[in-house]
Amino acid sequence: MSVPSAAVVATGDELVTGAAVDTNSAAIAARLLENGFRIERFVVLGDDEDALASTLVDLGARCAVIVVTGGLGPTLDDVTRSAAARAMGVELTKSEASLEAIRSWFARHGRPFAASNERQAWFPLGSEILPNPMGTAPGFAGRVGGARVFALPGPPGEMVPMLEREVLPRLRSGIPLEGGLSVGRFFLFGLSEGVFADLSGAWMDRGANPLLGVTAKLGVLSATLLASGSDERDADAILAARAAEFRARFAEWIFGEAEADLAFVLGRELLARGIAVATAESCTGGLLAARLTRVPGISAVFDRGYVTYSDRAKTQLLGVEPDLLARHGAVSREVAEAMALGAAQRSGALCAVSITGIAGPGGGTPEKPVGLVWFGVHAGGATRAEERRFAVRGRDAIREFAANTALDLLRRALPRD
Amino acid sequence: MSVPSAAVVATGDELVTGAAVDTNSAAIAARLLENGFRIERFVVLGDDEDALASTLVDLGARCAVIVVTGGLGPTLDDVTRSAAARAMGVELTKSEASLEAIRSWFARHGRPFAASNERQAWFPLGSEILPNPMGTAPGFAGRVGGARVFALPGPPGEMVPMLEREVLPRLRSGIPLEGGLSVGRFFLFGLSEGVFADLSGAWMDRGANPLLGVTAKLGVLSATLLASGSDERDADAILAARAAEFRARFAEWIFGEAEADLAFVLGRELLARGIAVATAESCTGGLLAARLTRVPGISAVFDRGYVTYSDRAKTQLLGVEPDLLARHGAVSREVAEAMALGAAQRSGALCAVSITGIAGPGGGTPEKPVGLVWFGVHAGGATRAEERRFAVRGRDAIREFAANTALDLLRRALPRD
Repeated sequence: MSVPSAAVVATGDELVTGAAVDTNSAAIAARLLENGFRIERFVVLGDDEDALASTLVDLGARCAVIVVTGGLGPTLDDVTRSAAARAMGVELTKSEASLEAIRSWFARHGRPFAASNERQAWFPLGSEILPNPMGTAPGFAGRVGGARVFALPGPPGEMVPMLEREVLPRLRSGIPLEGGLSVGRFFLFGLSEGVFADLSGAWMDRGANPLLGVTAKLGVLSATLLASGSDERDADAILAARAAEFRARFAEWIFGEAEADLAFVLGRELLARGIAVATAESCTGGLLAARLTRVPGISAVFDRGYVTYSDRAKTQLLGVEPDLLARHGAVSREVAEAMALGAAQRSGALCAVSITGIAGPGGGTPEKPVGLVWFGVHAGGATRAEERRFAVRGRDAIREFAANTALDLLRRALPRD
Repeated sequence: MSVPSAAVVATGDELVTGAAVDTNSAAIAARLLENGFRIERFVVLGDDEDALASTLVDLGARCAVIVVTGGLGPTLDDVTRSAAARAMGVELTKSEASLEAIRSWFARHGRPFAASNERQAWFPLGSEILPNPMGTAPGFAGRVGGARVFALPGPPGEMVPMLEREVLPRLRSGIPLEGGLSVGRFFLFGLSEGVFADLSGAWMDRGANPLLGVTAKLGVLSATLLASGSDERDADAILAARAAEFRARFAEWIFGEAEADLAFVLGRELLARGIAVATAESCTGGLLAARLTRVPGISAVFDRGYVTYSDRAKTQLLGVEPDLLARHGAVSREVAEAMALGAAQRSGALCAVSITGIAGPGGGTPEKPVGLVWFGVHAGGATRAEERRFAVRGRDAIREFAANTALDLLRRALPRD
């Protein structure tokens, strides 16, 4: 039983100098995995023709598939075309058809065609050109050693459609699969990684099949079950049995299986049930509303969000009594409740959630330290508040953790039908 | 002239299965670069002891420094301790002092000590234990081949302080530098990558010194100048000469050198000058306010943000006339101006910026397609509006691009002293 292996290579000086984060490789890996490939590794390189050429040769001896992103732009630091040609042992050649397509892209978008863009019409001899409907840089496909190599542009908006339209269909038809792999994902909130491990017991043993892995991020646990079988059906059956046990054991904390984002889980439930919601935020400063409004169509149930960063704004926009603020402080049970109630009443929404806390780095006291956050939830006609003390480090992490917590609290508080 | 090279390794099934993105390697690379190391590559692996052990041996033959993140947790999929021990050719051994420190961390934070956490007190024999003040997983330092290896935990809030306190000081004192490297960064807005390349000309040649690289993300261009010299002073001088030319040529678009985030550049200017600002958002749904409120201390100049997702909310919260909305539509010059003016008037802020657009995927028409966004800017007593049509793909990208554009428009509109 052996599953074909794949590697993902990302190139760019901006990546290895730390000026940008490689998100492409993760996106590609997720789709390759779902298509039956085990991901052997990611390699991230600078714009270095030698390093990329030798890496491709090395990976070509060990993997069935290599996907490279980046280095297809118009500038001289875009070396993927020449590095791939060296690894393939061929010359670069100009494609007139591709040059025409690039020129017409610029014309269609009313943008000036820069002389540098001509570089984008050169490809390793014998490679297959992969059209890029979203941008100026075509990709290409070829072979190095035992591996099929696909080169795609770096911008995710261009890379993703090409992965879906050009790469995955070629892979599905091209490689005979020996052995099957099946993957299940669960997303949980409200549980620490250590307690998760204790509850999981031997499911997390390295030899277990399915293999259970977990990672924690800002309160969200992502658990992955990876089942191997003699073929795909066998792997699916092994996965299904453990997944059922997993669901039973962790029912209290699982919020999603297909969806890792609490905002999308909550947003879709609000939309499906026609429940209107409003938000009132202090320390998160709009982050909660921004998370919710990532959901397409959410305008049907989300009308407004209040970012009330000062006491005065809380009073003027949400009707929080100045006296309440003076007596209990902005970060308190009383103010959290008043913010949620005010948001619901003033917007006319059935539900509302509020956040008021101390995100730091300044503003903490012994009684109210950095990381203390109060949440107000108005749902089913009642208003209540909950306190959390986030031990995570840094203003951003506290704000993101708080937004996740608010989404989870509201999700749990929605009136049952 | 040779600069010591470093590699960064990230481990975790969540990374190679695409469930999470490796942000640690970029953060580490940026700091290693600033400390005089050239980053050779990142390698991202699953929780696979064999692959990690052989990767460490391979990199140990080529690099002076290897930093590994992840795999130090309490669960059985945390294999960094055992893989590093194999690569070092030593056994694992339990540290009673470290176990005590871990137990006391749990006690101090009022959390239950899970049996699994004992695993975190085992280390490769002879390695140096690196204390983790922010969490339960200590790191360690040792040697594989010619490289010094540092293993740090995966959560960034724990990894970053350990990198700063434990790793970088050891590197500064430990390795003689031959040759110098100096890096300069510039962040620009409002310029395409192709035009940037044409304006840059031979500065981007691969053999140029300094070497100029560029990457574009949501309208922000990040340009890196990397100068090599016979020693650090020489590299600094080579960099300084080109940096001065670069500043002159791109003055119109450069918004930052030390800071890549438009929100921080704008926020710090608002704070320094005591200019109060308010935001009014439709399609970005709070993203602009969330970006601004990432800036510590911004409450001195930011009092509130209006997330007005419906026509009704625009009228009730910002005073936009229903008639104006009916005649021109919510995505229009007139409404963008009315939103900005309303936000300034109702909040009492001197400046305000508004965003109203069509982020998609639905809602577009031939006259007002997805990607059309109007911005209103109120500053210096005047209100004006600007239109942009974003050719980027996807709701998230349009929203992020729009937030960046609003920050840049306001930055340019601030009254000159």
